[in-house]
Amino acid sequence: MSHASAAPRRYSYLGPAGTFTEAALRQVPEAEGQVWNPVDNLGEALNDVVTGASDAAMIAIENSIDGGVTVAQDALATIPGLRIIGEYLVPVRFVLVARPGTALSDVSVVAGHPVAYAQCRAWLDGAAPTHRHLVATSNVQAAADLFDPTKGVDAAIAPPGIEAHYDVEVLAEGIAENPDAVTRFVLVSRSVPVGDPTGADKTSLMVELPEDRPGALLDLLEQFAARGVNLTLLASRPIGDRMGRYRFVIDAEGHVKDERVADALLGVKRFSPKVSFLGSYPRADRVAATIRDLHDDDTFRDARDWLRGVIEGTRDGEA
Amino acid sequence: MSHASAAPRRYSYLGPAGTFTEAALRQVPEAEGQVWNPVDNLGEALNDVVTGASDAAMIAIENSIDGGVTVAQDALATIPGLRIIGEYLVPVRFVLVARPGTALSDVSVVAGHPVAYAQCRAWLDGAAPTHRHLVATSNVQAAADLFDPTKGVDAAIAPPGIEAHYDVEVLAEGIAENPDAVTRFVLVSRSVPVGDPTGADKTSLMVELPEDRPGALLDLLEQFAARGVNLTLLASRPIGDRMGRYRFVIDAEGHVKDERVADALLGVKRFSPKVSFLGSYPRADRVAATIRDLHDDDTFRDARDWLRGVIEGTRDGEA
Amino acid sequence: MSHASAAPRRYSYLGPAGTFTEAALRQVPEAEGQVWNPVDNLGEALNDVVTGASDAAMIAIENSIDGGVTVAQDALATIPGLRIIGEYLVPVRFVLVARPGTALSDVSVVAGHPVAYAQCRAWLDGAAPTHRHLVATSNVQAAADLFDPTKGVDAAIAPPGIEAHYDVEVLAEGIAENPDAVTRFVLVSRSVPVGDPTGADKTSLMVELPEDRPGALLDLLEQFAARGVNLTLLASRPIGDRMGRYRFVIDAEGHVKDERVADALLGVKRFSPKVSFLGSYPRADRVAATIRDLHDDDTFRDARDWLRGVIEGTRDGEA
Amino acid sequence: MSHASAAPRRYSYLGPAGTFTEAALRQVPEAEGQVWNPVDNLGEALNDVVTGASDAAMIAIENSIDGGVTVAQDALATIPGLRIIGEYLVPVRFVLVARPGTALSDVSVVAGHPVAYAQCRAWLDGAAPTHRHLVATSNVQAAADLFDPTKGVDAAIAPPGIEAHYDVEVLAEGIAENPDAVTRFVLVSRSVPVGDPTGADKTSLMVELPEDRPGALLDLLEQFAARGVNLTLLASRPIGDRMGRYRFVIDAEGHVKDERVADALLGVKRFSPKVSFLGSYPRADRVAATIRDLHDDDTFRDARDWLRGVIEGTRDGEA
Repeated sequence: MSHASAAPRRYSYLGPAGTFTEAALRQVPEAEGQVWNPVDNLGEALNDVVTGASDAAMIAIENSIDGGVTVAQDALATIPGLRIIGEYLVPVRFVLVARPGTALSDVSVVAGHPVAYAQCRAWLDGAAPTHRHLVATSNVQAAADLFDPTKGVDAAIAPPGIEAHYDVEVLAEGIAENPDAVTRFVLVSRSVPVGDPTGADKTSLMVELPEDRPGALLDLLEQFAARGVNLTLLASRPIGDRMGRYRFVIDAEGHVKDERVADALLGVKRFSPKVSFLGSYPRADRVAATIRDLHDDDTFRDARDWLRGVIEGTRDGEA
Repeated sequence: MSHASAAPRRYSYLGPAGTFTEAALRQVPEAEGQVWNPVDNLGEALNDVVTGASDAAMIAIENSIDGGVTVAQDALATIPGLRIIGEYLVPVRFVLVARPGTALSDVSVVAGHPVAYAQCRAWLDGAAPTHRHLVATSNVQAAADLFDPTKGVDAAIAPPGIEAHYDVEVLAEGIAENPDAVTRFVLVSRSVPVGDPTGADKTSLMVELPEDRPGALLDLLEQFAARGVNLTLLASRPIGDRMGRYRFVIDAEGHVKDERVADALLGVKRFSPKVSFLGSYPRADRVAATIRDLHDDDTFRDARDWLRGVIEGTRDGEA
Repeated sequence: MSHASAAPRRYSYLGPAGTFTEAALRQVPEAEGQVWNPVDNLGEALNDVVTGASDAAMIAIENSIDGGVTVAQDALATIPGLRIIGEYLVPVRFVLVARPGTALSDVSVVAGHPVAYAQCRAWLDGAAPTHRHLVATSNVQAAADLFDPTKGVDAAIAPPGIEAHYDVEVLAEGIAENPDAVTRFVLVSRSVPVGDPTGADKTSLMVELPEDRPGALLDLLEQFAARGVNLTLLASRPIGDRMGRYRFVIDAEGHVKDERVADALLGVKRFSPKVSFLGSYPRADRVAATIRDLHDDDTFRDARDWLRGVIEGTRDGEA
Repeated sequence: MSHASAAPRRYSYLGPAGTFTEAALRQVPEAEGQVWNPVDNLGEALNDVVTGASDAAMIAIENSIDGGVTVAQDALATIPGLRIIGEYLVPVRFVLVARPGTALSDVSVVAGHPVAYAQCRAWLDGAAPTHRHLVATSNVQAAADLFDPTKGVDAAIAPPGIEAHYDVEVLAEGIAENPDAVTRFVLVSRSVPVGDPTGADKTSLMVELPEDRPGALLDLLEQFAARGVNLTLLASRPIGDRMGRYRFVIDAEGHVKDERVADALLGVKRFSPKVSFLGSYPRADRVAATIRDLHDDDTFRDARDWLRGVIEGTRDGEA
């Protein structure tokens, strides 16, 4: 049977070409040779997925310096029908660029994507203390904004290599605060059957806590700890209805088809008034979870066999 | 419909007629009209069950004053193939009896079952400070021992009403320390399929702890607490191989066919190097367990349905 | 001795007059009649405190919609010598304003403080889908930017009442997503002796977790739970040295001079490689903590008395 | 310097000479050359201490096979004013002895201390299936009972070496079930100031649980676990007022003058409606507790210093 006539797959990402998001998408083997659709912002990217205009969207979810991309976390928490299917890491470096002939001392308005700006702000506060910040929709668009006279931009925060795409000069390199900064991206599709474990997986959830229980967060964390499931991320986001109410963004080591993770999720589901499963997918860093014997799949299956035998009376109850 | 040809069921109990154990057996409706086999000690009673000589044995397992009947706990922990199928409570009161004509001041040797003796000891230490204790095999046998001249017994600790069976005089009544004392009995059979929950059940286990984990008992207890399963008994017994190694005797509220109890048992089984299931059976006091919503059977089933939908991608992961 | 010649106290806040931060400062009775110093950004405000230029600074720390003001959280975590001395809540409402004669359809560039912009973005995406965002340093400055021709601003997100200060027309009211939105502010001074408890207090901490312990966050939370201390905020912020390392921003109910809080802090301090105490201060909402008997001050003192007696042998060890 | 005129110290123990209890007392260097007072039972030994007739009493508290000596545990829980000041281990071996000329087949009545009898019962059930048990007040008294014609004793369970004191023949050696059996003894005095830690200490408590809290035992154990204090013994004993109410017998590693143990005891005291401190004393096995850095004395002191500085404002709150 031939797939010759199959429509190509379509990927939305924060464009244009040259962004870190594009660099993340380049890490996806299945995306090679397919249609890449640059968009202007997160909402557009996720909307493409929801409407079926695209098969998947690559979005930034966390930065090692600036923390969670809260607008992306909130979108995943509130838009139904989405599923994370992959995770990718991209090192983050920045240069300050300007139109040829501009001196650093001339810089008054700096275009930059807000996440990039946060990481370069310390340097900018030193080098251009009176600068103002104009929000750009992407790191590449910041450079493009230099050539839109209506914007009045003097300099732009952009990725290294930007001078290959635009007629700009580099005023300064390495302007981000931390040379080891990295941004974590996730590839998001509509809800699909969960893939198989690779042995180095991650599972993402959004969980609300019951309101009437002191120590509810402790109880939530114990659902994971009791099954030997480590968390790589725990962040709180306001639910938004009033001050002091939060949902928790959780990344757990392991795959929902791992017995210990499934059991932990059952515990979380029984406990939480609202839990969203966002996906189980291979970890970007390929680090396998450390699993003690008492939490491996065989131990879970043995326990179920034992319980069945005990109830049927065919086992005498001895371990 | 006729059961005429069915062999009668046979029950072993600590005899002779008149013991508290017999009083416990009288509480078993199914035992009425069947064969009751009085035996001399716990070992004989359980051996009857193991060999099939009897269908079940009634044994004392705990006293509200003296604590666990450790020899019975140890027997249940070490003899394979046994199952607790019922629980019964018998109020415990004692009289001191003697051959007619004996005065309290004449009493030098007192026959008594060790558990009875422990409860009456304070009174005896006051009334007959120099008495010696001769171990009797049952509370009724203690009275019988008065008429065995080779034993040199002067008085016996016996249940009220004993004078109906033996030619004895009551020297003193109410000699046990606590007027509200009660003994808990269990009916033991060979391993059989577990019966159905009644809504007021108890589940008995023997559990050994992993050796290499500090806080292992805490982890064990959390297996129950995390599922809202209360314990009515937690006792430690030496495993016997060396000082400081214990197994734990556990009675938990609920039935192994209750979802929360089954889930707790799976957790215990995964964690423990050796766990023995001793039975799920109706509680003697008929007190129903208090179950919060998040631990009831429906919540467990809903969580499993949710997880299945999430894995298949037919649910969008929202609660 | 006369205070007549005492220098007035000086308060820095995000200006100019009319900002929500100014509204928060108006809630501070001690600030009345003192010097109020409007500044352009958080860094300037905190710097005034560090250098002694101001006695205190009012800063926004959390919004009920947008979450923690991460730059403020990170500043408090990394700048030594600061102390929170008060907490204030300000309801947050926004209007969209423009120079007289501007129609909504003319709006291309919108000035707004980033937190305000986040709350009004949904409305703007609907009403002006192609708008661009220019970052303003405050909600009032956004309106002022309308009159700076170098900025090319068409409309501004501003607080209600702004038309009293600037020659603007209101294009739309109530443009924030949630009508109940509120922003939480804290008043920050240099380190000073902690004040006395009021019975409705809050204690703020920044805590790093030990790296070598799975379940470390669980252990941290148990330090509070074991003393009956509820948390009103738990947020994670990247430490910044590498992906996956977080510090935790914690607000706990109660005052460091409450015994249970002091004991919890001792536990946290023993456990954490780095903990910063940011202050104990009256809660803005004046809600008193619910304290069970076993966590009140008397219980703590009684236990210490008992332990002393036990060690000295003057108490027999009975409770 | 001379102590010539000091009154000798007086030690009560379960006599007569030759018992395991005497062997335990021989391990006490301070008891050498003092007055040793053999008594008939536990009650008498403890009464000597309470009345001041003796300075201390040596009592058996646990056996590696038979478990806790419950009557001793209950006595320590209910008699006020006692303090454990030392712990000793004695290996337990037994021989069966009789008057010269007696054959094993002649044995009908066997004298034995109940704890000894429990350990030899399996052997006796095999070698003399129809034997009866006469309770002896000590292992040595069992041999003496052979020569009291009023008792009708045929054989006695006694310690090896008994033939040096009585004219008996050994019918069988090594009749106890476990060749590694050991009994743990404690030396008990009136309440005295607690001694200093040796680095390998144990602390004994009796603790009742609050009635109104599910999971109360878990909370109790967490008081120890949270401070890194391991338990070497946890046993439950009925309080005696009704079925299902227990107090807990606890031996914890460490000394009440160790910071982590003191802090755990404060936690227990705040939580429990009734806690009895029974003493901190050197462990018989001289095994030092394993203490992690976060639970050592310096860590506790550092935390207190930090908290004081934080409250006074002389430390900026940084760790």
